Formats: sequence, structure tokens, C-alpha cells
Amino acid sequence: MPELYDVAAIGNAIVDVIAPCSEDFLNDEALVKGSMMLIDEDRAQSLYGVMASGLEASGGSAANTVAGVASFGGRSAYIGKVADDQLGQVFTHDINAIGVRFDVPALKGGPATARCLINVTPDGQRTMSTFLGASNKLTAADVDPKIIEAAKIIYLEGYLFDPSDAREAFAKAAGLARASSRLISLTLSDSFVVHRYRDLLLGFIDSEVDILLANEAELCALMQTEDFDAAMRGLRGRVKIAGVTRSEKGSVTLQGDAIDAVPTAPVEKVVDTTGAGDQYAAGFLYGLSQGRSIAHCARLGHLAAGEVIQHYGPRPQVSLQDLAIAAGL
Amino acid sequence: MPELYDVAAIGNAIVDVIAPCSEDFLNDEALVKGSMMLIDEDRAQSLYGVMASGLEASGGSAANTVAGVASFGGRSAYIGKVADDQLGQVFTHDINAIGVRFDVPALKGGPATARCLINVTPDGQRTMSTFLGASNKLTAADVDPKIIEAAKIIYLEGYLFDPSDAREAFAKAAGLARASSRLISLTLSDSFVVHRYRDLLLGFIDSEVDILLANEAELCALMQTEDFDAAMRGLRGRVKIAGVTRSEKGSVTLQGDAIDAVPTAPVEKVVDTTGAGDQYAAGFLYGLSQGRSIAHCARLGHLAAGEVIQHYGPRPQVSLQDLAIAAGL
Repeated sequence: MPELYDVAAIGNAIVDVIAPCSEDFLNDEALVKGSMMLIDEDRAQSLYGVMASGLEASGGSAANTVAGVASFGGRSAYIGKVADDQLGQVFTHDINAIGVRFDVPALKGGPATARCLINVTPDGQRTMSTFLGASNKLTAADVDPKIIEAAKIIYLEGYLFDPSDAREAFAKAAGLARASSRLISLTLSDSFVVHRYRDLLLGFIDSEVDILLANEAELCALMQTEDFDAAMRGLRGRVKIAGVTRSEKGSVTLQGDAIDAVPTAPVEKVVDTTGAGDQYAAGFLYGLSQGRSIAHCARLGHLAAGEVIQHYGPRPQVSLQDLAIAAGL
Repeated sequence: MPELYDVAAIGNAIVDVIAPCSEDFLNDEALVKGSMMLIDEDRAQSLYGVMASGLEASGGSAANTVAGVASFGGRSAYIGKVADDQLGQVFTHDINAIGVRFDVPALKGGPATARCLINVTPDGQRTMSTFLGASNKLTAADVDPKIIEAAKIIYLEGYLFDPSDAREAFAKAAGLARASSRLISLTLSDSFVVHRYRDLLLGFIDSEVDILLANEAELCALMQTEDFDAAMRGLRGRVKIAGVTRSEKGSVTLQGDAIDAVPTAPVEKVVDTTGAGDQYAAGFLYGLSQGRSIAHCARLGHLAAGEVIQHYGPRPQVSLQDLAIAAGL
């Protein structure tokens, strides 16, 4: 099988609705700052009704990552489910426009395209409330073997452990990837997801995952420790490679037994941290697909995350390839 | 009649789709840089198909202006037409969320909510292609006399000269405003609109308009001269008050016979000029509604325009009231 893609991702296909909010707003709406909470359509309507005026942008964690890979000049593909409606058209347009292969048929006659209501506090932290809608209807039948078998790296979202049909799609993709000797990468997505599915996630990581992406809180939740260094050491032998983000401190990588901190430069002004982890994953996986050293991969991740947190919207607004060249990466 | 609103506006209710583009893209697509062109649904589909990945944000010139007035702390109302679809819900949510009264019923069974495809070149200039859709279906019946009669200033978009039904809505609003001794303001909107409807616009200005908003190119098109100073002098006796923008040079005001230049400070980085004129109008009209001097009104306009050109999206992302206080205005 030829390698047509550097990265192929499976995830929840979501359009983001991004609006600024106060700390009080989070309290009034009983939202846990920094978390992702699943909501139903009624709650989506009522929460949207009290949110501030916003911007809409295509999102979805793994979709943001493959968009980032494409922005670096990588070849990528995406598998996820939108509805046959205006927001589904927006999602499809945007991912195709950035050069990502995406041809899963849109859902007809079911729930609307998924929306993530993102409230951004003045410190740039985002709190997400997701109505899964059509994205929840992704099934194993949507996983095209030709895409999985033709990708150097398969990338899976921890968020997909929520819908049970998607977990089957996950398993199918992992099986196909394994059979074709492709690398399998996973992001833990959210510390609450880790709490909900810790045993399933650990089992999946031990049996299937080569490359793990996470942030500090997610990794500590997975390893059930507050000691970050111990959590990193706990990954030895479980995965071959890991990249774990620590906000302004940069990230810590694991390769085999080697654990190394990679610092990052501060950005001018943090506007909205939505998509920071997704873009770190984009840089990290793109670097791996190009055979770069692990430290180089982490620096590409920092570069991409640094771009996306300086504006509203979860995807890069400039070419990451140009940024990387300008930064000597 | 009590004055419930500082500004009530009538305009095309539009959702913007904003994406970066190259100069070559404009040439390839035969788009005239800086202009607004009307397109049909087929062309909207084909142009969207070749545009880059973008952001969606509620727009529409006069709607942006009343959103700006609300951001200054003013009371405002809006009259325009959306469809009963996802983008119509987005438009309605956003304008209500910012505190603008908007309760024109959504159109059912007709064309979709209007979209403006905005391609932004690296210099920050925007080129707009508008599918009028449901906004085109605004009729005189949608103009609620209770809103017009309760507003200090009525604000009308030159763009509304394009759909003929909207022109009737325009005339009704002007008649109601005149009968209640309200001030009538008009923006010329676009130099191509001025070319298309010059005689109609001049007749309307002479008979109905108290306050004229325009940019340099629009005013010169209206007065059929390339001499900007002569064009300003030509407004004497036609309108009581005018504010005319000249990009980085600031603006020139007219009040009675007095013509004065008001300079502005340069902004750090121009990202997207979409909405600059709309926000100048917001500051200018809000100032007038509060009884400020004409020079103060212009400075409020510069402040609001300066905010909006430093990010993607046609509406302020921070409180203009807070900005004005910080600037000593």
C-alpha cells in the first residue's frame, strides 16, 4: 500500500461557536473552567441563548490537528460525521479548502451537525459544552480501509470513547492500522474523558497505541498521580513515543526510556487557548511523519500551538509551513 | 413618543464568511479589490468552493453599526430579514446577545439567510461577494412604526437601494421618522452602489437625509469629482451633518458650513478592514445621540474602527464603552 497520507485522523466533526465570557458566567451556568462537557440539544439551545455574540469556525479536536498537519505542508485525511445542513457544509468546505481529504457522506434526516459552545474567559482559557449531534452517528462503516492503510500515522481522539458506535469505528481503524504496520497515535483529549474511561483507555493504550499525546492534567488523571514526573515515567514500556504539554512551560517528550523537557518561548498575548493541544499534536505528528528528532517534533508542536492561541478560532490563520521556515525549523 | 433607542437601523441581514486570499485569487476570480459585488446562489456556491478555510460571523453593514452602538452602551434596534435556518439563528442570536432589539420574523420556505463571502488580501483589504438570499425579502411590512418613532436617529444602508422591495421599506421608515421629527442618517455603503443609483441617492439625500456617512471614494462618486475638498463642499446645504472617512488619514466632518479634518492615530497591525466604516458610523452616531461635539463623534468613530480592523470579523470583540473610557472619550 503506498503512503498517501502523513496523518489520517478519526474524530468528532464539530463546528465551534466561540464567545468571550466572564468568570461569573461560568459560575452562573455551572460550567467547570477548562473542561469539555457533553450537552443535549435542549441545553445547547438554552446555553447558546445566554452566551455572548460569537464567531463560528470549524473545529473538532482531531480535525483541527489534520488541518494543522496540512498547514505544515503534510498530506492528511479525516474521518468524521456531519449532517446535511449549513454548518455541515461549513465544516466540509473548511477541511477540504485546507487540503485535507474528507469524503464521509453527510447524515440525512438525523440530528444536526455537532456544535461546541466555547466560552473564553479573559485569561484565554476555554470552557467547552458539546452537543454531539450528527458526529455521534459515526460508525465503523464510515472508516474507509483505503484511507487507514495508506496513512503513515493514524490519529484517534479520546473524545470518541463517549459515543459507543464510534468506539467500534476506533477499534476497526486500529485493527486495520495494525495489520498494515501503521503507527497508531492517540490523544487523551480531556481529563474528564480520562476519568470516565480510564480502564478502557489504558487497555487500548497498552494493546494498540504507539504514540500518545496529552496534557499534564490528562496524563496525571490516567496515571492516577499528582506527581507529573512519576506519571511520565509510568509511560515507559506502555508507548514508544509521547508528547505531553505543560502550557507555558513547553512540553515533555518520551522516546523509549528517554524523558526530556523541551521549553517554549512565551507568546505576546494569549487570546484563546482553544486548539492549543490540537496544534501541538499537529506539529508533533507532522515532524514524526517527516522523520524528525523527537525534540524537533516538540518544537514544531510549540510553534503551531503558539500561533493558534493568539487569536480566536481553533485552526491556524497563517501557513505553519511558512512559520516553521521563518523559525529555522 | 418616548426615545427608547439611540439608533434604529434598517439593513441587509447577512452572515459573513471571512477567509484570507492572495492578490492572484482576486484576479483569477475576476473580483474587484475593495468592492462589494452581488452574486446569485450558484455563484455563491462556486466561489465558496474555491475560497480558503474561513470564519463565520454575523455581519451586514447597518447591523454591525448598531452592534457597535450597543458596545458603546447605547440602546439600539435593528430591522432586517433572515431565513429560518442555522445561519439565521446565528445572526439572530448574535444581535440579541449584544443587546440590540431585533424581532423581525424569519422567512420560511424562501431563500437561505444571506451570506457575504469576504476575501481578505494580505494588506487587510476586503473584497465582498454577497448572496442576498432572505435579506432581499425585507418589505415595508417588516418596518415596525413603534421602533422608528422611538429612535433618536434612524440609520439606513445605501446597499438597500439594490432590492426594490427594500427601497419601499426605506421610504416608509423615512416617512415615519420625518413625521416624528427623528434624525435620518444614511451611509453610501459602496462606490459601486453610488454609481448604480446616483440620481435616486441624491434625491433621497436632498429630501430626507440629515446625517450622511461615507468614505472618500463613495463621496467622490456621489459628487462626480476626483477633488475630495470640492466633494465635501458640495455637501453644504444638502445635509446638516456628515462624517467622511479617509482610511489612515482619519475623517473629515461637516456641520452646517463648517468642514474640519479630524486625524487618527495609526493602529499596530491591520488584519481585516471589514466593518471599519460600519464602526466609524457606530461611534459617530452614538456620539451624536449623546449630544457630543462633532469632533468628539469623529474620534469615537476612529476608536471603534481602530478596534475592528485589528482582527478578523466585522464587529468589536471588546467593549467599546471600556475602550472609550480608557481613551478619555
